[in-house]
Amino acid sequence: MSLVRVHNFSVSLDGFGTGEGQSRDAPFGHAGERLHEWMFATRWWHETIGRPGGTGGLDDALARRFAPDIGAEIMGAGKFGPPGWHEDPEWKGWWGPDPPFRTPVFVLTHHRRPPIGMRGGTTFHFLDAPPAEALGTAREAAGGRDVRVGGGPTVVRDFLAAGLVDRMHVVVVPILLGRGVRLWDGLEGLERDHEVETVSSPSGVTHVTFTRAGP
Amino acid sequence: MSLVRVHNFSVSLDGFGTGEGQSRDAPFGHAGERLHEWMFATRWWHETIGRPGGTGGLDDALARRFAPDIGAEIMGAGKFGPPGWHEDPEWKGWWGPDPPFRTPVFVLTHHRRPPIGMRGGTTFHFLDAPPAEALGTAREAAGGRDVRVGGGPTVVRDFLAAGLVDRMHVVVVPILLGRGVRLWDGLEGLERDHEVETVSSPSGVTHVTFTRAGP
Repeated sequence: MSLVRVHNFSVSLDGFGTGEGQSRDAPFGHAGERLHEWMFATRWWHETIGRPGGTGGLDDALARRFAPDIGAEIMGAGKFGPPGWHEDPEWKGWWGPDPPFRTPVFVLTHHRRPPIGMRGGTTFHFLDAPPAEALGTAREAAGGRDVRVGGGPTVVRDFLAAGLVDRMHVVVVPILLGRGVRLWDGLEGLERDHEVETVSSPSGVTHVTFTRAGP
Repeated sequence: MSLVRVHNFSVSLDGFGTGEGQSRDAPFGHAGERLHEWMFATRWWHETIGRPGGTGGLDDALARRFAPDIGAEIMGAGKFGPPGWHEDPEWKGWWGPDPPFRTPVFVLTHHRRPPIGMRGGTTFHFLDAPPAEALGTAREAAGGRDVRVGGGPTVVRDFLAAGLVDRMHVVVVPILLGRGVRLWDGLEGLERDHEVETVSSPSGVTHVTFTRAGP
């Protein structure tokens, strides 16, 4: 069975998955890179961007579960680009010519455009559809493999609220952002459908994994 | 120097320190006892209520830091009683004749009444004052010992926002309450003035300690 998975999704201790004031220079707004420093430090991330070094251990082991068995990603418009990206016909995402996804990626947006093929296997498709319908399309493209819901917080929350997420890896970073977009709103009782495991890392972050009870 | 401390303050993963719908039968509203099960399981709690048994280990070690060197507690009106308690002249708190505080306790309320002496050393005083002023009064009563800010979430948040808290022990329980009173609102950048340490417990909760950098 093809699963729906969330990986490396970082939130502040007060629950914000992104800060306020997102722009081309600040993809996560006033949060800057603070939500993802734990990930940038890992050997997996270093490998992904073609650099030597990086940490092993818990953060690395969990971070690198990002890619295996994934056949497609779904992301929100706010992950693909800053406010107004749809007015720039040259915008191709934040990730340069070789994005780290290496599968079809479905960008949920009201501003559709033709697919954009990138180096390394990533193709961006633009889709105006609610969660379940977008998942159907992504599953077809994934060819039996799993579908990753990549964020931002609104999209992850929408998929959770629709009961569509089988595995979720959230990373709580011990900072208080105070403002931005919350992950957890409106998800009362989510733990009832999932096994929840929490483990703190020597790096200071806490990994929380949600595993939906199987049939 | 007399410190201001917060202990065993439990919040849900989505940041609620109490649920919605508090009443005489439900001091934490729809959260029930779920925020404090970790604490009720400890040997320290068992000792406090005069029962044998309970767990040792991490949860117990952190929980029992509640009392030592504390000379007074400050609590909010919502911790002392359910909405409307001030209309009941017989209301003496939730804790029966021998409350676990065993020091003067200052209840912040617009509805003042004469102090109530209880068994075991607890006296409830009723005070209508902002955080810094209440702290001055409590410090005087504490006779050089520390002052505990006991909750609820609004009072802890007010003391944090006023920069008055030296040590805080928050316990994140892996449930999503969805509604209630949040601890973290409006505390952007709190981590800058504190060392933050996070450790997950085999019981499933995560202990987060904030230690304010000394002078």
